[in-house]
Amino acid sequence: MEGIDYHDGERSKAEFDVEEMKIVWAGSREVLEVSDRMGRLVASDEAFRKDNRTMLSRKDLFKNTLRKAAHAWKRIIELRLSEQEASWLRFYIDEPAFTDLHWGMFVPAIKGQGTDEQQQKWLPLAYKMQIIGCYAQTELGHGSNVQGLETTATFDSQSDEFVIHSPTLTSSKWWPGGLGKVSTHAVVYARLITDGQDHGVHGFIVQLRSLEDHLPLPGITIGDIGMKFGNGGYNSMDNGVLRFDHVRIPRDQMLMRVFQVTREGKCVQSNVPRQLVYGTMVFVRQTIVSDASSALSRAVCIATRYSAVRRQFGSQNGGPETQVIDYKTQQSRLFPLLASAYAFRFVGQWLKWLYTDVTQRLQANDFSTLPEAHACTAGLKSLTTSATADGIEECRKLCGGHGYLCSSGLPELFAVYVPACTYEGDNIVLLLQVARFLMKTVSQLGSGKQPVGTTAYMGRVADLMQCCCAVQKAEDWLNPSVILEAFEARSARMSVACAQNLSKFANSEEGFAELSADLVEAAVAHCQLIVVSKFIEKLEEAIPGKGVKRQLEILCNIYALYLLHNYVGDFLSTGCITPKQASLANEQLRSLYAQARPNAIALVDAFNYTDHYLSSILGCYDGNVYPKLYDAAWKDPVNESVVPDGYQQYIRPMLKQQLRNARL
Amino acid sequence: MEGIDYHDGERSKAEFDVEEMKIVWAGSREVLEVSDRMGRLVASDEAFRKDNRTMLSRKDLFKNTLRKAAHAWKRIIELRLSEQEASWLRFYIDEPAFTDLHWGMFVPAIKGQGTDEQQQKWLPLAYKMQIIGCYAQTELGHGSNVQGLETTATFDSQSDEFVIHSPTLTSSKWWPGGLGKVSTHAVVYARLITDGQDHGVHGFIVQLRSLEDHLPLPGITIGDIGMKFGNGGYNSMDNGVLRFDHVRIPRDQMLMRVFQVTREGKCVQSNVPRQLVYGTMVFVRQTIVSDASSALSRAVCIATRYSAVRRQFGSQNGGPETQVIDYKTQQSRLFPLLASAYAFRFVGQWLKWLYTDVTQRLQANDFSTLPEAHACTAGLKSLTTSATADGIEECRKLCGGHGYLCSSGLPELFAVYVPACTYEGDNIVLLLQVARFLMKTVSQLGSGKQPVGTTAYMGRVADLMQCCCAVQKAEDWLNPSVILEAFEARSARMSVACAQNLSKFANSEEGFAELSADLVEAAVAHCQLIVVSKFIEKLEEAIPGKGVKRQLEILCNIYALYLLHNYVGDFLSTGCITPKQASLANEQLRSLYAQARPNAIALVDAFNYTDHYLSSILGCYDGNVYPKLYDAAWKDPVNESVVPDGYQQYIRPMLKQQLRNARL
Ligand SMILES: Cc1cc2nc3c(=O)[nH]c(=O)nc-3n(C[C@H](O)[C@H](O)[C@H](O)COP(=O)(O)OP(=O)(O)OC[C@H]3O[C@@H](n4cnc5c(N)ncnc54)[C@H](O)[C@@H]3O)c2cc1C
Ligand SMILES: Cc1cc2nc3c(=O)[nH]c(=O)nc-3n(C[C@H](O)[C@H](O)[C@H](O)COP(=O)(O)OP(=O)(O)OC[C@H]3O[C@@H](n4cnc5c(N)ncnc54)[C@H](O)[C@@H]3O)c2cc1C
Ligand SMILES: [Ca+2]
Repeated sequence: MEGIDYHDGERSKAEFDVEEMKIVWAGSREVLEVSDRMGRLVASDEAFRKDNRTMLSRKDLFKNTLRKAAHAWKRIIELRLSEQEASWLRFYIDEPAFTDLHWGMFVPAIKGQGTDEQQQKWLPLAYKMQIIGCYAQTELGHGSNVQGLETTATFDSQSDEFVIHSPTLTSSKWWPGGLGKVSTHAVVYARLITDGQDHGVHGFIVQLRSLEDHLPLPGITIGDIGMKFGNGGYNSMDNGVLRFDHVRIPRDQMLMRVFQVTREGKCVQSNVPRQLVYGTMVFVRQTIVSDASSALSRAVCIATRYSAVRRQFGSQNGGPETQVIDYKTQQSRLFPLLASAYAFRFVGQWLKWLYTDVTQRLQANDFSTLPEAHACTAGLKSLTTSATADGIEECRKLCGGHGYLCSSGLPELFAVYVPACTYEGDNIVLLLQVARFLMKTVSQLGSGKQPVGTTAYMGRVADLMQCCCAVQKAEDWLNPSVILEAFEARSARMSVACAQNLSKFANSEEGFAELSADLVEAAVAHCQLIVVSKFIEKLEEAIPGKGVKRQLEILCNIYALYLLHNYVGDFLSTGCITPKQASLANEQLRSLYAQARPNAIALVDAFNYTDHYLSSILGCYDGNVYPKLYDAAWKDPVNESVVPDGYQQYIRPMLKQQLRNARL
Repeated sequence: MEGIDYHDGERSKAEFDVEEMKIVWAGSREVLEVSDRMGRLVASDEAFRKDNRTMLSRKDLFKNTLRKAAHAWKRIIELRLSEQEASWLRFYIDEPAFTDLHWGMFVPAIKGQGTDEQQQKWLPLAYKMQIIGCYAQTELGHGSNVQGLETTATFDSQSDEFVIHSPTLTSSKWWPGGLGKVSTHAVVYARLITDGQDHGVHGFIVQLRSLEDHLPLPGITIGDIGMKFGNGGYNSMDNGVLRFDHVRIPRDQMLMRVFQVTREGKCVQSNVPRQLVYGTMVFVRQTIVSDASSALSRAVCIATRYSAVRRQFGSQNGGPETQVIDYKTQQSRLFPLLASAYAFRFVGQWLKWLYTDVTQRLQANDFSTLPEAHACTAGLKSLTTSATADGIEECRKLCGGHGYLCSSGLPELFAVYVPACTYEGDNIVLLLQVARFLMKTVSQLGSGKQPVGTTAYMGRVADLMQCCCAVQKAEDWLNPSVILEAFEARSARMSVACAQNLSKFANSEEGFAELSADLVEAAVAHCQLIVVSKFIEKLEEAIPGKGVKRQLEILCNIYALYLLHNYVGDFLSTGCITPKQASLANEQLRSLYAQARPNAIALVDAFNYTDHYLSSILGCYDGNVYPKLYDAAWKDPVNESVVPDGYQQYIRPMLKQQLRNARL
């Protein structure tokens, strides 16, 4: 069997240059080269094996993660990997670990909120991992509402220290990754109290554990918060609980870039603009959107490859059955997810640009685009993570029964992914923020203030309120400007309708609360428009490679028309399209599926994922699914003995009608 | 803290008699009494503890399940429990086990497909559990398409035996629950071959393991297929793999109720009608629908109780924050699921009636309603299991971060539930069957053949194609006949539209394949109508108890209008309602949420679930969530030591920059 490629036939059907598509997916030839190299490095290193992950006990799993993290760090040093290379290495190791929080939250928090001196003191330690840090914001009783945190940091002017304290059970820090067992330090968010006055929530660098014996320092209680969703999955992470009993830290460990406490206990707002923190947020959310496209594409890759191997029904004259990927129902569930993966990839790439843009403007003290950038990233985080979580589970279902086995890779991928809908902002809470921004934008339309960035189309609201969709035959739906106008009109009209309904309330906050479910729908419409428009913009670039652009056009149309079909109620009730046009869109969609079909395998090959990264038998590159499933089964610990442990005590007495005397 | 009820205030707000609602939910006072008694019995027996389930290794989990099954059987015998009591006992033990397949599939298969003699021989053994059986249909390469199974049963007329054989790797039996480690016998589905001729797939009773030492019999290879989704969850089940190498069984172990092989190897169709097997299918699917309402109501109970405890934002003057259940977005996600749980309950109760009806008709040789009953149960299985799987995950998200902890109970509930979308018929494959039936129904409308049962409304197709929804103000949507007509018109029009589009194809099979995604949508519309109409019918009964009927009316309206809102595209594009009417429905929905709000806790109390059954800290009856979460965390094995295993080898060398020399 060695060397047989069961997808050979599929691959030869492709109508485009896969290698060129890999570059488009990666973002550049250089990124493809680096990521490809790191992917192979990880795949070829036995130390990074993960095929047994779902079978390990929590303790073994966790210890294994510590080993992998240390090994990774060793390799990073030995090979003198760049920051970019190291980050790809961690990506392919594909195991949540304390290092994610250290690099992804602790270091950025100090960079973003620390003064120059603080950065000079702490960052070199963190860069060398002489300290390991986490991000301790959430508490047992407080998450989304950060301003409601209860932990206190009371300034003691006598000793020039802050006293960090957990006054209640609900003030216990709860959830921070890396906290439970590993971190030596944390950025702790606490209410600043000086002279009995509450100055709101600020960040403090607190040492948690001794650098000598790793024991928690006096006054500190720490532990792991226990098992989370799934086997393997996020259980490799030590999300932790932390309580402070009057723990003292020097004054200079408050992060003081924007707000300072002086030696005398006076509070001073620095001249650094508060908005700076939004820059970090844009950065973090951009990485989340990019992670969404990775996770979704991974699931889609598995489901697509397996759908080409799996056959059910339709055998004629004893010949092979039909590949399930040839069923239109399978295509109508799978191909929109394939298209979404590409769509999220491109909007993620655009967010990288947005982050640079925002950073440059901040440096030039231009804050004008910040609220829009903030709303836009909040919305895209919400949209892409929700769609990805649902999409992974749909991919699992697309694999029928075998998708339920851990060896399919999909259960673990789902379990490890879903919290992205909750952390870094609960998706509904974020959409409400977007809605708030949209209502503000609409309300200012009359005032001459021009909406910017992704809300610029609102400036054409008068046109959008009355435009008519020009589609007369199915192919008309292939026109990007037709699609764009329909999505713009729908979003504008939904926002305007919400604003009109809001204006009927005497108290606008009450109105916002009462209409919040509708407002969330308007926010979703706006965010979908952003993704569609960024895909269309991408297609305006020159894209080299035989047939590459053509495939992307097909995917872009699938993405847009699938959204239109799924949310057709929005389009119809706002009068943006007619029922007839909706049905033409549906017809066009079917024809697009037929066009995508021969390219499906090549389109997922373009993600350039190694079998190690996919960790899915159903998704393996060569499609040799059945022997691999069969062999993997026998590795389960319950197969160590033919007769199971417990037979003598529990099964035999039952069969022999001797339970009465059994001790159970 | 002992004895405090944090939901006290909520409970006192309820506007109806909870005890009476419990009876409605249970189906009768008698069922409530039995289920309540069994629920308490399980909860009070230490042997049935399950709070540590997600922390156990696969082997420990499995052994524990064997112990529980033996203990349950012992109690059933000791207490001389009736069949009904025993089945409630297993329900509350709440752990997938080989007994599910023994009682739920093996015994019914023999009852349904065995001759009288076969039943007399095998059933007493099975009833006493002197043999343990499973249901071995699915193969590694064949699931949905049962006719494609590869296992062979070749008749050897010389020895009067069948030779059971697995000719290929893909013919290995794969998935049967209880097979991997426990079952002594199986009903094996295999292609019957006599004289080189293939007579299609039939069932055979095959002994798998020795009743003396539990070793597989000669020629038989068996094992467990390995880890499945989630920790705990379905991993307590030994889904198995099975290969036959020319295994011989006596001729009388073929299940011969409808099809017989004589001593001479002749195949004879018996005079028992083939349709009989459909009766079993209706029965099995009815239990699946009832399980859906149990699983969904359980998730909803957890999310509702926690939403009343959890507070975020909106604190005024330092007072408590707002209960998240008071946010309209939370309500618009949660209350439709609460309403769905009730809706599925009632349609499940109706299916019990349908099963009796079908059985009686079968006995009277009346097969006229069978195709309709078959399509209806297929559709309801698909609809309720899909909605329940999605609903559980939505409930988990409604709990924010804490829903991701295993101690919330929701991850395990999701993981254990989702395969219901796949087994007993993949949900899409089932909807395609429904669609086929609908198309047949529509095509026969002209012929004078009156559609029956749940398709009876199609007989009024002419009216339904042209009726106009009469809603003029929001309250008009409270009228059941208005709702019913809208759902009937939508479903009829979607089916007719599909039929018209199908007629454009020269080859109707090709047309069906091409339009299958639309056909699935028409099938969903039909199934939703069934659920809505059965809820409305329920409300036509006399329902005693203060305020009980009123609450059910609210829930029925929420269910219907939420569907209407979510699928508004269907209603608009078929012209069943206008955009204005859609917006009035939405308005009415908001007001219904406000009416449900004060009753929410009482409405989930009416499920009468013990804390043991819920196994969720977030859902505990007294609402004392935070101390319980905090205490539970410390029980995780990684908290056994303060400094984690692996510190010396992996963390310390990292911190001390000594990795270079470390052996990892
Ligand atoms: C795997 C994981 C890792 C994490 N890592 C970290 C970490 O490293 N550091 C850290 O500090 N934290 C971490 N967290 C915590 C995370 O940031 C919070 O869980 C998240 O912010 C959500 O807050 P919550 O849990 O309080 O949800 P809640 O806000 O309690 O959500 C419960 C429900 O209330 C609703 N709701 C809340 N507010 C409103 C409103 N105003 N209007 C309408 N509805 C509302 C939500 O939509 C949701 O349905 C992590 C969490 C997870 C799951
Ligand atoms: C937890 C669990 C327990 C089980 N227990 C048992 C048991 O006890 N005994 C037993 O015999 N089996 C058992 N099974 C097997 C189960 O019955 C099958 O998995 C199920 O029938 C689905 O079949 P499949 O896996 O072949 O899916 P497939 O049919 O391969 O599905 C793959 C995809 O193809 C699509 N598809 C298939 N056919 C068509 C079509 N004609 N048109 C359009 N799309 C199509 C499906 O919609 C799906 O998206 C169990 C499975 C699970 C997960
Ligand atoms: Ca919809």
